[in-house]
Amino acid sequence: MTANAAGVWVPVLTPFDAKLAPDRDRFIAFCRWLLAQGADGLCPFGTTSEANSLSVEERMGLLESLIAAGIPPSKLMPGTGLCALTDTARLTAHAVGRGCRGVLMLPPFYYKAVDDDGIYAAFAEVIERVADQRLRVYLYHIPPVAQVGIGFGVIERLLNAYPSSVVGIKDSSGDWKNTQGLLDRFPGFAVFPGAETFLLQGMRAGGAGCISATANVNAAAIRGLYANWREPDAEQRHARIAEIRRTIEAYPAIAALKTIVANALGDPQWNRVRPPLTKLAEARAKKLLADLAALGFTLDAHGARAAAE
Amino acid sequence: MTANAAGVWVPVLTPFDAKLAPDRDRFIAFCRWLLAQGADGLCPFGTTSEANSLSVEERMGLLESLIAAGIPPSKLMPGTGLCALTDTARLTAHAVGRGCRGVLMLPPFYYKAVDDDGIYAAFAEVIERVADQRLRVYLYHIPPVAQVGIGFGVIERLLNAYPSSVVGIKDSSGDWKNTQGLLDRFPGFAVFPGAETFLLQGMRAGGAGCISATANVNAAAIRGLYANWREPDAEQRHARIAEIRRTIEAYPAIAALKTIVANALGDPQWNRVRPPLTKLAEARAKKLLADLAALGFTLDAHGARAAAE
Repeated sequence: MTANAAGVWVPVLTPFDAKLAPDRDRFIAFCRWLLAQGADGLCPFGTTSEANSLSVEERMGLLESLIAAGIPPSKLMPGTGLCALTDTARLTAHAVGRGCRGVLMLPPFYYKAVDDDGIYAAFAEVIERVADQRLRVYLYHIPPVAQVGIGFGVIERLLNAYPSSVVGIKDSSGDWKNTQGLLDRFPGFAVFPGAETFLLQGMRAGGAGCISATANVNAAAIRGLYANWREPDAEQRHARIAEIRRTIEAYPAIAALKTIVANALGDPQWNRVRPPLTKLAEARAKKLLADLAALGFTLDAHGARAAAE
Repeated sequence: MTANAAGVWVPVLTPFDAKLAPDRDRFIAFCRWLLAQGADGLCPFGTTSEANSLSVEERMGLLESLIAAGIPPSKLMPGTGLCALTDTARLTAHAVGRGCRGVLMLPPFYYKAVDDDGIYAAFAEVIERVADQRLRVYLYHIPPVAQVGIGFGVIERLLNAYPSSVVGIKDSSGDWKNTQGLLDRFPGFAVFPGAETFLLQGMRAGGAGCISATANVNAAAIRGLYANWREPDAEQRHARIAEIRRTIEAYPAIAALKTIVANALGDPQWNRVRPPLTKLAEARAKKLLADLAALGFTLDAHGARAAAE
């Protein structure tokens, strides 16, 4: 059994071509660049990846492409949680079959006000169907978007029933009390705050690292804090990455991150998003880049371009 | 070009077998029975159908089964709106290709706080991809569940761009003001309140009928009001069906409806739901059936059984 995932993991942005199809070459190049920046691993098909705008087949195709391109499966934790039980089981089995380090699993998110028994059953049924000892599930708790969360009672039951399969959680509640509660109640469980804003606080409390959207454009600095969280300059590092995140968060996050990448690479195609998202209007995009420049922040375009070539 | 759909349409419950797979035979029998009860048409794969717990392939397979069993496609308006553009386009093209009367289309519902441009683009892109003059889209506005709604501005733009394709809406806002606003602002648009509670009020204001979950167990009476809404006993019919709906709505609706069907057919398999839903606990199920019996309501078990045989 491999150790739990840890460190800075990136829910990778998904580039689209002129027909709004996923652009495999740009995707592979960007994934390589993120790893070269120091990311510990990649979570393709997270919220930031516009994964919920991709079909099951599109996700499977992209995952195959990454592995075929030589990205080690041990550095991959694809998102596999969909509304339909059969889809989640299919994607999860595929990821496990390809040797991925783990899967990041949303609860089914269409039906609201479902009870804990139902959420538990949804996860349990997928685990039973996949029926593979290699399976490592990282639960994905993101109530601000999914609306359906994963409560402590559900986690406790899952840990009791599937202790070797259910190994961690991405906590994107944005609520430190929830993260602290997870760390207190489930020792040994790999708790990833969903933002680098809580990375330092998380590490001090026994957290596993972070899985953060903004790591798409600031992986090296976030990894720097992860590696140095015990050092005297940790607070300073924290303040710096938190300031950059706050600046980006003032904009719709996915479109903003794509704007930053497109600008750094001089590649306007990176601006493209799939409906229902919309790209930033030109004035907003300029303002974002100006806001970041004012902080002295620039994405390492050279490194990015080199990886893309 | 066929006229817009009208009357009482049923978002059909989906029965599951012991492996939680859709049970095609029970599904076909139940659809036949609903039509025999007087339903004007069927909306398989609505919210009540647990459609969002079914994969694209499962929906397509069930639709094929219905048509192969002789259910006229002119009486079918399947739900086809999913989070992923490519999935929605695929399901919609399939339904149009099979000659369905229309499709009932949710907006993409994972990403929240998306703007009107994005919702518009999501529908427009599907219509462009399907590129079939036979396409008839009924928008599906259900903000209490989907969280993402369809505003008047989006509808106006769609009607301007695709006047022959976008022909109606199911308004499950539960807010009469919204329904009235749709009727006022878009004359000729087929507006279906999402509950029989608003059927009479809707007909008086120019509505098209209703598409309602509880029509799964009360289709004949609801159809009776639709056929007689100008008659002196309309208020009395309205009060009766509204009372039954209120009673059922005090329980989780899908599980409650399945309990009623299972009881009427003497077929416990009908109780089964897919996670994340849970079936009613036995005491709750008994209470529901007692509540309904106290109103003198019983589902026509004989008719249901005959159709199932």
